[in-house]
Amino acid sequence: MDKIPRPVIRRLGLYYRCLSKLYEEGVDYVASRDIAERLGIKSSQVRKDLSYFGEFGKRGVGYNVAMLMEKLESIIGVDKYWNVIVIGAGNIGSALVNYEGLKKEKFNIIGIFDADRAKVGRKIGNLIVRHISELKEFVKKNIVEIAVIAVPETAAQYVVEQLEQLGIKGVVNFAPIKLRTHLLVEEVDITLTFKSLVFQVERKI
Amino acid sequence: MDKIPRPVIRRLGLYYRCLSKLYEEGVDYVASRDIAERLGIKSSQVRKDLSYFGEFGKRGVGYNVAMLMEKLESIIGVDKYWNVIVIGAGNIGSALVNYEGLKKEKFNIIGIFDADRAKVGRKIGNLIVRHISELKEFVKKNIVEIAVIAVPETAAQYVVEQLEQLGIKGVVNFAPIKLRTHLLVEEVDITLTFKSLVFQVERKI
Repeated sequence: MDKIPRPVIRRLGLYYRCLSKLYEEGVDYVASRDIAERLGIKSSQVRKDLSYFGEFGKRGVGYNVAMLMEKLESIIGVDKYWNVIVIGAGNIGSALVNYEGLKKEKFNIIGIFDADRAKVGRKIGNLIVRHISELKEFVKKNIVEIAVIAVPETAAQYVVEQLEQLGIKGVVNFAPIKLRTHLLVEEVDITLTFKSLVFQVERKI
Repeated sequence: MDKIPRPVIRRLGLYYRCLSKLYEEGVDYVASRDIAERLGIKSSQVRKDLSYFGEFGKRGVGYNVAMLMEKLESIIGVDKYWNVIVIGAGNIGSALVNYEGLKKEKFNIIGIFDADRAKVGRKIGNLIVRHISELKEFVKKNIVEIAVIAVPETAAQYVVEQLEQLGIKGVVNFAPIKLRTHLLVEEVDITLTFKSLVFQVERKI
């Protein structure tokens, strides 16, 4: 159960979302090919991915939606609420705080910090921007495991080093830079996504 | 040159960014292991990826930075400016319009559209939000190849169908839904990124 490839991990989230919808629709059992079709992937892939976790659909019946959903919930770690802090109160930080999708999936953003005194005290969603110097105290008082880095590229490495010292476990990094850290990092690289798209557009023309 | 795996395509953008920095630093030649180290990947991976495009570093000398950069520029398609429109003037749409990183990489957002009349006429960055009914006319007048879908999940499929009819070639989709379309799509799925992170955090504890 240790060496699960990263693409599989990402697809687990997709399966979970798909199952939640099926559950809402009142579906009791689902075949791997139905999941596959909804997600635009191969059904053999679905079966292979789920077999990592010892889940096998019954031939002719499929997967029990509620049971598989519950199992995925606990595997992914979305069976609990996660406290999240955001470093950087610029456009990306603000968009995240206001993003309902995260809250719906049990990611609660409980604090947003910035080094810029001009931004401190401003209201974003229902949070007040705090100065970065308050970070340590805040993390001490609240259980925070996840931090978002939404600062300029030049500040990102410094920020991650601060976060290391505070016992943060995982980081979602929006700065377009490879961080040197022992923390778990997931990158969201918007410009790379655009580049990857135009590469394909160019090839298709 | 046709069957280039998607992860390779994404890494091309990383190589290009790395080379641009080296170029700014005045570096003339670079070894694959230096590129690899800066990006936190294996040097054998760098050599393999670049060999897709017939680029081979000289033993003991490495890659010519300027030449490789220029070649990547044209391969990725960032040797020209791309006009981009954003559908949805919510938090994500606004953040994108204000994001300097895209402009720097030659992605010009030239229009932002929303179905909500309350948002139409508002200024975001240096753009005025237009009503979605103006989309067709706008795309006719301007050369637009790339569109961003930043609307709620429930509207995303409808939007992509509109875009298909307008001759848009590629879409960056921020809505957490698998779009049914023949257009090229790159997904940015923020909650999946968070889920993937906490999965790893849970495993590490």
